[in-house]
Amino acid sequence: MTKFSKVLVANRGEIALRVIRACREMGLRTVAVYSTVDADALHTRFADEAVCIGPAQAAQSYLNIPNLIAAAEISGADAVHPGYGFLSERPEFVDAVQKCGMTFIGPDPEHMRTMGDKVMARETMKKAGVPVLEGTTVLESGEEARAAAERIGLPVILKASAGGGGRGMKIVWDLDEVAPTLQTAQAEALAAFGCGDMYCERYITSPRHIEIQIVADQHGNVIDLLERECSVQRRHQKVIEEAPASNYSEKLRREMGEAAIAAARAINYNSLGTVEFLLDGDRFYFMEMNTRVQVEHCVTEMITGVDLVQEQIRLAQGEPLGWLDRKWRPRGHSIECRINAEHPVNFAPHPGTITALNLPGGTGVRIDTHVYQGYTVSPYYDSMLGKLIVHAQDRDKAIARMRRALGECVFEGISTNVALHRWILKQAPFTEGRYDTHFLERNMDPDAIQAELDSHA
Amino acid sequence: MTKFSKVLVANRGEIALRVIRACREMGLRTVAVYSTVDADALHTRFADEAVCIGPAQAAQSYLNIPNLIAAAEISGADAVHPGYGFLSERPEFVDAVQKCGMTFIGPDPEHMRTMGDKVMARETMKKAGVPVLEGTTVLESGEEARAAAERIGLPVILKASAGGGGRGMKIVWDLDEVAPTLQTAQAEALAAFGCGDMYCERYITSPRHIEIQIVADQHGNVIDLLERECSVQRRHQKVIEEAPASNYSEKLRREMGEAAIAAARAINYNSLGTVEFLLDGDRFYFMEMNTRVQVEHCVTEMITGVDLVQEQIRLAQGEPLGWLDRKWRPRGHSIECRINAEHPVNFAPHPGTITALNLPGGTGVRIDTHVYQGYTVSPYYDSMLGKLIVHAQDRDKAIARMRRALGECVFEGISTNVALHRWILKQAPFTEGRYDTHFLERNMDPDAIQAELDSHA
Repeated sequence: MTKFSKVLVANRGEIALRVIRACREMGLRTVAVYSTVDADALHTRFADEAVCIGPAQAAQSYLNIPNLIAAAEISGADAVHPGYGFLSERPEFVDAVQKCGMTFIGPDPEHMRTMGDKVMARETMKKAGVPVLEGTTVLESGEEARAAAERIGLPVILKASAGGGGRGMKIVWDLDEVAPTLQTAQAEALAAFGCGDMYCERYITSPRHIEIQIVADQHGNVIDLLERECSVQRRHQKVIEEAPASNYSEKLRREMGEAAIAAARAINYNSLGTVEFLLDGDRFYFMEMNTRVQVEHCVTEMITGVDLVQEQIRLAQGEPLGWLDRKWRPRGHSIECRINAEHPVNFAPHPGTITALNLPGGTGVRIDTHVYQGYTVSPYYDSMLGKLIVHAQDRDKAIARMRRALGECVFEGISTNVALHRWILKQAPFTEGRYDTHFLERNMDPDAIQAELDSHA
Repeated sequence: MTKFSKVLVANRGEIALRVIRACREMGLRTVAVYSTVDADALHTRFADEAVCIGPAQAAQSYLNIPNLIAAAEISGADAVHPGYGFLSERPEFVDAVQKCGMTFIGPDPEHMRTMGDKVMARETMKKAGVPVLEGTTVLESGEEARAAAERIGLPVILKASAGGGGRGMKIVWDLDEVAPTLQTAQAEALAAFGCGDMYCERYITSPRHIEIQIVADQHGNVIDLLERECSVQRRHQKVIEEAPASNYSEKLRREMGEAAIAAARAINYNSLGTVEFLLDGDRFYFMEMNTRVQVEHCVTEMITGVDLVQEQIRLAQGEPLGWLDRKWRPRGHSIECRINAEHPVNFAPHPGTITALNLPGGTGVRIDTHVYQGYTVSPYYDSMLGKLIVHAQDRDKAIARMRRALGECVFEGISTNVALHRWILKQAPFTEGRYDTHFLERNMDPDAIQAELDSHA
């Protein structure tokens, strides 16, 4: 068991701040890395040390493994936390970190390789008895794909083996379209991921996205920390997450928890992770496993009182699950809204300087953000300004609290999606807790959202 | 049972915002009142309606009963929430509100009269079997006072019957000083409170301030919502509060909870209230009862998940305790630091404009404030900028979290007491949880606090 003394945080924005906060509370020193546009960022200012790792373009800084390793070595860090995004699921980064004698705060590189290859992940889960959708391994030809689609039944979805997170997917509704779509998809996947491998699965038309938080130590202990519902999505990007899920039986909670634990056990997983499932009525199917902390981890923290990032660091030090090793019950209800710098109706990103800012506060309100009044939102990185998280006794009270909190948000100088959230929180499918992943796109009402925006201006 | 539809909030600052938030979440419309300097304040902006009630001087606005009643009538409010301070414990305000057919969100005026008269409160508690310190009723002469002091034993404390909250008190260590001190104190009390009545009590030299949160409905049900420790004080003003108390046995928790319930029952109390005790070793004595929501109510909310202000409003509607009616157990640990606009060493108030602001966030951090970047702290009102509240699994983790959060506070353009808090959170008596109400004044180290201030600049 090695206690860390200094952790390099290989990320930026709110998640870098999140990790710095966890380290600070644990008494660990921190090293921030920053690109030239992030010299004044809060993660740069709040860490004990900060090292510039290159220009604004992520490829030259936050994705630049040699620069990150050099920063870690210069500063004498003994561990590296990757956050989410950027290099957080790149096994070659883990290899580089470990080669230099430092600990990567996350799972082993093999876990990332297995789960990053979606066909391998599917087959591994199938063997472990985790439900997967009817489907194939890598498709060798258009004929094979067509035959598979015929066997599975339309519609089917063609997925890139190197994709994930909603990227590299095509839905096919017509048998004659299977072969040509495969060809296009293979070319696109090759261009996007450097690998053209595609596979096919049955397509569920009205699924819910339910994911299970997994915590595993290096001694073979695995628990689930309940579920998150992430079905409010736009183009496969999560917009609102909540925990626990609504319209979710104790039987499903038990079965999906067990399936997620089986998934982690199947690969001897040994860190924080999330097993994502598609839920179709009361049947669920493995979708993918994320081998890192997730944006939406906060809603789990709110209903359990567990500091997931501190636990993740503790596990990386080789400590056992300890107090976490029990069956968890949800305490109240939590909702998270991702606040993005984008137009609430047309979703155009809107970088710029925040000239006036007010963030909500009070009972049951949590803010995770890296922005402040005077902060300039850079066009170089994703548009998330932060996360607004609420907690209350039950879902209705959490919705009332979130509506109240959204009403207190003031962001001048940039556009944000706050009006979109305000609108979503009034829609019956959301307030009644009966929505699937198509809820947002099927119900989008630009005029109503614009009216919400105008009424709050 | 009357459901309110519109609540006038007869206060300003963070507590006005706190009440507006509770109303908003309950679906109640709100009316803010504001003095001319508070026209741009958040409570003015975030309420559904806002009425100007006079110039900056509190006597002409926030303490001006006719103007407040007029504002309530003009806006059609059916209930009035007083917050804390200002008119919150003035029975004549309750009378005026009730005379106009509106509901006062708080107890009956008789409760305020009984508890506002410290001699009457003492006698009432004594009769109800609640422990009180050895002492007297109103002293008629210097000779009587001297005889009482001789009987009780020195030191004694002379207290104004109309005082409370640490005002109108004199400690006497010498028998010959009793009579002259009484004379001075009577004159001062007459000038300050319009009543020169004084009484005498045994003085405890190293007491802890432990208070019990009481919730009572209009149907005779009373519960205690655990204790708060408020012994970090400066000149009887609370600086840091926490819940639960440390070095506090289950036996004490039970006994003090029962005593507080007995105190509330003795006067048929029917709202939110706090019974304050002095704790001397494992013996406790009634000090006073506050018949309103307190500044530090948040730490109780954090360890119970109860929204005290919403419950207070619910009770005022005549609803029964309902789900609250059970024995509560503390969940984790919470600490609150009052952030004031004052110099951290010499405590000089420091009004001015906040030119740059960063408030902490993340897991377990709650902010209750009415300030924002660009806000001007007025010299007309108390100097509290807001409250920083943390919650964690245990006290050590809560202290680590508070230290981390204080480190993220940025207030430019004004002085704050953040450095004082940072210093307190490093002192052994505090971290070890063995401090009494004299801890701060006995240990004040201006150079160390100045160093804390400099290191963070």
